[in-house]
Amino acid sequence: ERCGFSEVIYGEGKNVSLIADIIETQQRAGQSSLATRLAPSAAEWLQQKFPSGHYNSLARTFRTTAKNPQPPCPAEQKSFSATYHAAVVTAGSTDTPVAEEAIETLIWMEIPYQRFDDIGVAGPQRLLAAVPQLRQASAVVVIAGMEGALPAAIAGHLSAPIFAVPTSVGYGATLGGLTPLLGMLSSCASNVATVNIDAGFKGGYLAGIVVQQLLASHSPFGKIK
Amino acid sequence: ERCGFSEVIYGEGKNVSLIADIIETQQRAGQSSLATRLAPSAAEWLQQKFPSGHYNSLARTFRTTAKNPQPPCPAEQKSFSATYHAAVVTAGSTDTPVAEEAIETLIWMEIPYQRFDDIGVAGPQRLLAAVPQLRQASAVVVIAGMEGALPAAIAGHLSAPIFAVPTSVGYGATLGGLTPLLGMLSSCASNVATVNIDAGFKGGYLAGIVVQQLLASHSPFGKIK
Amino acid sequence: ERCGFSEVIYGEGKNVSLIADIIETQQRAGQSSLATRLAPSAAEWLQQKFPSGHYNSLARTFRTTAKNPQPPCPAEQKSFSATYHAAVVTAGSTDTPVAEEAIETLIWMEIPYQRFDDIGVAGPQRLLAAVPQLRQASAVVVIAGMEGALPAAIAGHLSAPIFAVPTSVGYGATLGGLTPLLGMLSSCASNVATVNIDAGFKGGYLAGIVVQQLLASHSPFGKIK
Amino acid sequence: ERCGFSEVIYGEGKNVSLIADIIETQQRAGQSSLATRLAPSAAEWLQQKFPSGHYNSLARTFRTTAKNPQPPCPAEQKSFSATYHAAVVTAGSTDTPVAEEAIETLIWMEIPYQRFDDIGVAGPQRLLAAVPQLRQASAVVVIAGMEGALPAAIAGHLSAPIFAVPTSVGYGATLGGLTPLLGMLSSCASNVATVNIDAGFKGGYLAGIVVQQLLASHSPFGKIK
Amino acid sequence: ERCGFSEVIYGEGKNVSLIADIIETQQRAGQSSLATRLAPSAAEWLQQKFPSGHYNSLARTFRTTAKNPQPPCPAEQKSFSATYHAAVVTAGSTDTPVAEEAIETLIWMEIPYQRFDDIGVAGPQRLLAAVPQLRQASAVVVIAGMEGALPAAIAGHLSAPIFAVPTSVGYGATLGGLTPLLGMLSSCASNVATVNIDAGFKGGYLAGIVVQQLLASHSPFGKIK
Amino acid sequence: ERCGFSEVIYGEGKNVSLIADIIETQQRAGQSSLATRLAPSAAEWLQQKFPSGHYNSLARTFRTTAKNPQPPCPAEQKSFSATYHAAVVTAGSTDTPVAEEAIETLIWMEIPYQRFDDIGVAGPQRLLAAVPQLRQASAVVVIAGMEGALPAAIAGHLSAPIFAVPTSVGYGATLGGLTPLLGMLSSCASNVATVNIDAGFKGGYLAGIVVQQLLASHSPFGKIK
Amino acid sequence: ERCGFSEVIYGEGKNVSLIADIIETQQRAGQSSLATRLAPSAAEWLQQKFPSGHYNSLARTFRTTAKNPQPPCPAEQKSFSATYHAAVVTAGSTDTPVAEEAIETLIWMEIPYQRFDDIGVAGPQRLLAAVPQLRQASAVVVIAGMEGALPAAIAGHLSAPIFAVPTSVGYGATLGGLTPLLGMLSSCASNVATVNIDAGFKGGYLAGIVVQQLLASHSPFGKIK
Amino acid sequence: ERCGFSEVIYGEGKNVSLIADIIETQQRAGQSSLATRLAPSAAEWLQQKFPSGHYNSLARTFRTTAKNPQPPCPAEQKSFSATYHAAVVTAGSTDTPVAEEAIETLIWMEIPYQRFDDIGVAGPQRLLAAVPQLRQASAVVVIAGMEGALPAAIAGHLSAPIFAVPTSVGYGATLGGLTPLLGMLSSCASNVATVNIDAGFKGGYLAGIVVQQLLASHSPFGKIK
Ligand SMILES: Nc1ncnc2c1ncn2[C@@H]1O[C@H](COP(=O)(O)O)[C@@H](O)[C@H]1O
Ligand SMILES: Nc1ncnc2c1ncn2[C@@H]1O[C@H](COP(=O)(O)O)[C@@H](O)[C@H]1O
Ligand SMILES: Nc1ncnc2c1ncn2[C@@H]1O[C@H](COP(=O)(O)O)[C@@H](O)[C@H]1O
Ligand SMILES: Nc1ncnc2c1ncn2[C@@H]1O[C@H](COP(=O)(O)O)[C@@H](O)[C@H]1O
Ligand SMILES: [Mg+2]
Ligand SMILES: [Mg+2]
Ligand SMILES: [Mg+2]
Ligand SMILES: [Mg+2]
Ligand SMILES: [Mg+2]
Ligand SMILES: [Mg+2]
Ligand SMILES: [Mg+2]
Ligand SMILES: [Mg+2]
Repeated sequence: ERCGFSEVIYGEGKNVSLIADIIETQQRAGQSSLATRLAPSAAEWLQQKFPSGHYNSLARTFRTTAKNPQPPCPAEQKSFSATYHAAVVTAGSTDTPVAEEAIETLIWMEIPYQRFDDIGVAGPQRLLAAVPQLRQASAVVVIAGMEGALPAAIAGHLSAPIFAVPTSVGYGATLGGLTPLLGMLSSCASNVATVNIDAGFKGGYLAGIVVQQLLASHSPFGKIK
Repeated sequence: ERCGFSEVIYGEGKNVSLIADIIETQQRAGQSSLATRLAPSAAEWLQQKFPSGHYNSLARTFRTTAKNPQPPCPAEQKSFSATYHAAVVTAGSTDTPVAEEAIETLIWMEIPYQRFDDIGVAGPQRLLAAVPQLRQASAVVVIAGMEGALPAAIAGHLSAPIFAVPTSVGYGATLGGLTPLLGMLSSCASNVATVNIDAGFKGGYLAGIVVQQLLASHSPFGKIK
Repeated sequence: ERCGFSEVIYGEGKNVSLIADIIETQQRAGQSSLATRLAPSAAEWLQQKFPSGHYNSLARTFRTTAKNPQPPCPAEQKSFSATYHAAVVTAGSTDTPVAEEAIETLIWMEIPYQRFDDIGVAGPQRLLAAVPQLRQASAVVVIAGMEGALPAAIAGHLSAPIFAVPTSVGYGATLGGLTPLLGMLSSCASNVATVNIDAGFKGGYLAGIVVQQLLASHSPFGKIK
Repeated sequence: ERCGFSEVIYGEGKNVSLIADIIETQQRAGQSSLATRLAPSAAEWLQQKFPSGHYNSLARTFRTTAKNPQPPCPAEQKSFSATYHAAVVTAGSTDTPVAEEAIETLIWMEIPYQRFDDIGVAGPQRLLAAVPQLRQASAVVVIAGMEGALPAAIAGHLSAPIFAVPTSVGYGATLGGLTPLLGMLSSCASNVATVNIDAGFKGGYLAGIVVQQLLASHSPFGKIK
Repeated sequence: ERCGFSEVIYGEGKNVSLIADIIETQQRAGQSSLATRLAPSAAEWLQQKFPSGHYNSLARTFRTTAKNPQPPCPAEQKSFSATYHAAVVTAGSTDTPVAEEAIETLIWMEIPYQRFDDIGVAGPQRLLAAVPQLRQASAVVVIAGMEGALPAAIAGHLSAPIFAVPTSVGYGATLGGLTPLLGMLSSCASNVATVNIDAGFKGGYLAGIVVQQLLASHSPFGKIK
Repeated sequence: ERCGFSEVIYGEGKNVSLIADIIETQQRAGQSSLATRLAPSAAEWLQQKFPSGHYNSLARTFRTTAKNPQPPCPAEQKSFSATYHAAVVTAGSTDTPVAEEAIETLIWMEIPYQRFDDIGVAGPQRLLAAVPQLRQASAVVVIAGMEGALPAAIAGHLSAPIFAVPTSVGYGATLGGLTPLLGMLSSCASNVATVNIDAGFKGGYLAGIVVQQLLASHSPFGKIK
Repeated sequence: ERCGFSEVIYGEGKNVSLIADIIETQQRAGQSSLATRLAPSAAEWLQQKFPSGHYNSLARTFRTTAKNPQPPCPAEQKSFSATYHAAVVTAGSTDTPVAEEAIETLIWMEIPYQRFDDIGVAGPQRLLAAVPQLRQASAVVVIAGMEGALPAAIAGHLSAPIFAVPTSVGYGATLGGLTPLLGMLSSCASNVATVNIDAGFKGGYLAGIVVQQLLASHSPFGKIK
Repeated sequence: ERCGFSEVIYGEGKNVSLIADIIETQQRAGQSSLATRLAPSAAEWLQQKFPSGHYNSLARTFRTTAKNPQPPCPAEQKSFSATYHAAVVTAGSTDTPVAEEAIETLIWMEIPYQRFDDIGVAGPQRLLAAVPQLRQASAVVVIAGMEGALPAAIAGHLSAPIFAVPTSVGYGATLGGLTPLLGMLSSCASNVATVNIDAGFKGGYLAGIVVQQLLASHSPFGKIK
């Protein structure tokens, strides 16, 4: 009786045959699958076993499409309109793998999204140029390393919720991502919430469910619950 | 040209006459005001200066109502329906001041909410009893100290976004709230985002804008932007 | 004149021939042996040298049976009854290696146990289903990573002592297990004590001696001391 | 249907009238009460309101006796024999307040105990002299600050479980008790589990339930569950 | 034979009569004085003893003018031109005391400066508006708390060196200023150097000596050494 | 319209073909290039692709000369005179790689410099002998590991700004460079600013722009802006 | 049968009447007493009770002379010669209270000493001037805050053991003394050992026993043991 | 004019040919050499180049004997008597490599020593048995990991200075040796000073110079300076 999305497989330290079992169980239940933080060898093995699946080597994810799509929960039939969508933003090109994980998650959730790359605080013009489009999104994932300044810099321009994802990019005082994590939490911007370091999956998922609620609320079946 | 909500005043370490100036400026602009983290003496002084304002001594907030409500931004006329609302949950009675801050914020935003007190993991029955009602909310603020386990315990039951607020309640290994903060971030629940320690305001604000987008999307003026 | 159990060999950073010497000394004294945190190469070498021993590659332990069981200390003749036993619980499947170490320890101590896998806070139904059986145990080892919420979630249901073992599973804010460690220590549950990160051995040993005291107190030889 | 001991009131940051309400509710249910970490002013107020209660100013606890002792849970009628008991040990005289909290807890639980003061590693003779008596206890609470060496020093002499309580006594490198906490967790002694800094209550409670299980298992009503 | 500026008195934890002695010694040597981090009581006592001195209660500094200005070191005669000057920037109004300390230092060094208040990343328009003027400065002090994002946000617009001063403003995850400190150090902006938390004095001093070298290099006496 | 120096490429975790693209873009714009923190394999690949470039394997940098030097920004024509220059100082021979990175940066900026090796606090005579020459520099980069004492030890002798670079050399209590970083920030020397651990590039760049401003201010084109 | 010096009383958090009891016990045993880290009120009370004792308010110590000096342990009769002595060095005037504690300890031990104040790395001339005298000492206590550079700076000049005492003087990045503590431990000087933050007593005691062994080895009674 | 011992070579991260150069320079000056923290490959290369040198692979040291022993500094002719010597103690067998480094240092210094292995707090009998011999030593190096309890446990039995060396042995809460480091510093034993994690060299060196002063003070040439 769990509604909404099926459980996502956390791949780190998990036996690859266990992962395959879960995917098969989900397929039998007519669900699509998403596994994250996979070792390359595990991902390649899964690709061979499930040739119609999609392995994203940057994101370290593996994703399958539901064989027999699960009948919707009461009031959940999705009728996507492009009106409501998420945005995924990175500060620099080294943040790309985390953005890929967020985007794989949104694709798996069937949520429309836009992507804005490399608009970190170092280049304020690029950031300002993106603002009008960013204001169209109903939820924004902002991925940044170093001091993690980008979410706060964007937040003042938007009224939608921002999900900030710190990355482990950097050296020395960045403490493997703890510094941007603490910085994002300390930000005085009121519309910024934070997730774990490198947790592109979580950022994407949270933005996805905010958009999903808007989409569902306008579907003929009414509000998702 | 900033839309949505007016800027909230961060009261800590700020001169009380500066705070009064800001409130007056906001009143002249037809905006309501919210000041947080006030010293008691500052709050009492504000209460005397703005007798129609509301001082919540537990929350350490002061709030005024707009004199001449600001004309809505394009497509923002609010038509609240009880259908969409937030929920505010505490783990224990010592988390109350933070919950009060979240609720003051929701009241100031004019967002409907429900409140669930003292349903921490220590008493699993009370938590389970609240689940059916919690599933009605479009965004949930979960406030907890100690190990910060409550958001993860609730998350599995809901598909709405959860904004977790760690509190500084506890001693020794709780490290003034760092332990529940890190715990909430580490949680494997996919629908949990975290804000700063004791940041009831942020939890309330984020839940508020998620609900606000749903309310606005159903208003005759369409989607808020 | 040390009673109870013989000394356990901490294998990390220890020369394998030194470990073999200790095992042989213990065998001459009629004692069984347990070595923990072994490198695979060391363990395989020991398996060849002591073919009747048992190497658990997940737990990274090696265990032998006493050649001539040591005559019991005054009043220590064991007469195991299934009534008194320990329980070993994991939050997720990535916690398995630590659980294996706890269980190898209990087997070596000849203490009866039950095992409950993957009943973390993410799936509250599985946890609730296990409670009636868990209440039969006289001591419970609870193994969990991430925020380490499971011991507190279980504690409210039981009156037996719980030995919480944080694991180093996770990334970013879990700080290699420090976050669940601090969370378990911060918990307001009164019947939870904590051991070091990944210390399945300690969790198993402590639960083992609690059960052992109950078993011994009902043996014809009276209370163990 | 919760058996065993009634809930203990965590007094820090809790309104004194709320505490009094809880005590009254517990009294009406025929339960005794224990409140910990009380501010002196709160404790004195409680003493006046409940004159038959007991305020321990060193321990910062307040304790009442059940008006109409709760009828025992199935199989829980207690028939205390002095055979099974706990021990409470301190390293130095500055650890006394934490020991008092542990002892108040044992008294409230009606568990027999012995007390050993000031036998820290600085004076090894005093420690060795206490060993024969310590070996009589079925569970031992060891309270120490600074480097927290005492539990490990005692552990080698005993086969019973030891509950180590680090204290916040010290300065500089003791980091308010984090250093003995981490030291106790790092100890290579296998029969030591640790609780939070200054958590005399928890140490006492855990030792209490280990002894309680032994006492109950020998009562005419059989094993407690 | 120490050239340039006389030693600045670090006032914290220093006896007020010792401070007065140092000021008198400096006066006899024809030097001006600057004392920082003074307790209010100490500062008021100094104001009474040296009535022509200047006490800045926000900055917690006390400053005197040289009685007989010290003859310049070889090649150090100052001929200030408004062309070369420093800038002092704050992110928010709570950063004011630290800015005051920086400015008192620049005044004492007789270095021209401009001041830009409250142009933090929350209000990107105000920041952009200040850029043309900021580009006139030869060294910039940027003072910010929370995540410490402002120096990086400004740095991309300027080619002069920026001295970033983190402040202890904030709560929870700001860790008393450690978070902005680490953030500023982690920034990928190449023209940002950092000083200690709340060290307005150091920020002002460093900007002052950069400007001073430019001023001196254009004086008739040539380059300062 | 960005003046001064072109953007420097942060090589860590960046695809080598992306780096080559950036270098080519900069070459087309008539700019020289500098890439830092390169993996050896990436650097060797770049050396082959751009044979006239310079790979410094100790510094892990790669540098190219502008094909068609960019026409100067208004008032920026450089007329280097040996008068103004930077100094680069190391405490010990293990700090060499970081010094090489600083020097590669200064060469790329075309800023004259002097180098002083291995004059750490352990050998006070060597430090004192270097002081007269060090006083000629307009900005000094001081690179040191362990306790990071050298910047403070040098600072008292100079009036120019010092850019302190902590290194990750050392073990145990040096915490991978955090200890010298914190030490440098804590120093009571007023003319010391600090950059990230191992950030030779930043130290060099900051010293470079201080010298550059002096050089430009004396060029026929006047002050750089 | 404990030889050498009697036990020193750690005054923090200890009841003043307990301290008086210990002093009286020591007096009855013919021993002198030393109590450290006393609250002013406790110290004043002791001064009144033991009028011939010596209260040092800066050091926060109280010291008494033995009534009937204890007969020496075998081979311990002291015949002090000025040849062997300790030195106590401070970096700055804010380190004075810790130096006073070290000196009170040396006086109580009856060990000759010399004192060198305010010779921190900021003023290298004063340090160099003191070196010839410092080389006469058989053990040196070096007390410094901030980055804790002084011990390393002195160590290269001496061959005697140096006991480094970090102080809690400073703000921000000094982390209440952790930074100089870690810096002193990280130093590459081979003759430096470190004690706890503000532990003037320990520094004095260790220097004292090194000198004491030299003095005793030349007494007619031979080597102390 | 540096007396006493020649400089020790810190081998980590240092080019092997640079190390060979230093050894050759020291040989030409008639000095013996000691290099520490060598990579195995570097050490083997040195062994081949200096066949009469001694490589200790556990200690990771390389040591040579002086070709033409350096004429003694004024008053330094050594006349070793077995009376004065150092002791080196380990808590467990995993501490052996650090003990080897300390002992190699003492051998190189030509200081007599005794060695006590594996007498950690887990086996109090072995510790007590060693005490009478330990009391003969004039300085004691105590090497321990985990909670670092051994120095405090030994200290109460001795009046000589103890140099405590924490080791990085352990996992989880031992934090790579930070926990025993902080524990040793926090110890209430007055005769314990601490050095860096795994710094066997420093422990040995400090004990060596304490003994050396005693030996020299009894040589015909009088006191070493
Ligand atoms: N990359 C990820 N980061 C954090 N949580 C994840 C990630 N991938 C999956 N999860 C969560 O982990 C849970 C599954 O854990 P497991 O049962 O160990 O596979 C799911 O509830 C997901 O929400
Ligand atoms: N001193 C204490 N330290 C830790 N936990 C405590 C303490 N006192 C009471 N508790 C626990 O706190 C819980 C009650 O919390 P509360 O509902 O906030 O009063 C009970 O389950 C007790 O087990
Ligand atoms: N607010 C401050 N922050 C950091 N350093 C300071 C401050 N004020 C003065 N100083 C430095 O402290 C030194 C004087 O220290 P003292 O001798 O203790 O007065 C001078 O060299 C100043 O550079
Ligand atoms: N293992 C070690 N740990 C700490 N310091 C050492 C060690 N070995 C040598 N040293 C010190 O490092 C200094 C030499 O450093 P370097 O010039 O880099 O070889 C000498 O003064 C030694 O005292
Ligand atoms: Mg970034
Ligand atoms: Mg809670
Ligand atoms: Mg878990
Ligand atoms: Mg203690
Ligand atoms: Mg700010
Ligand atoms: Mg160095
Ligand atoms: Mg100092
Ligand atoms: Mg050990």
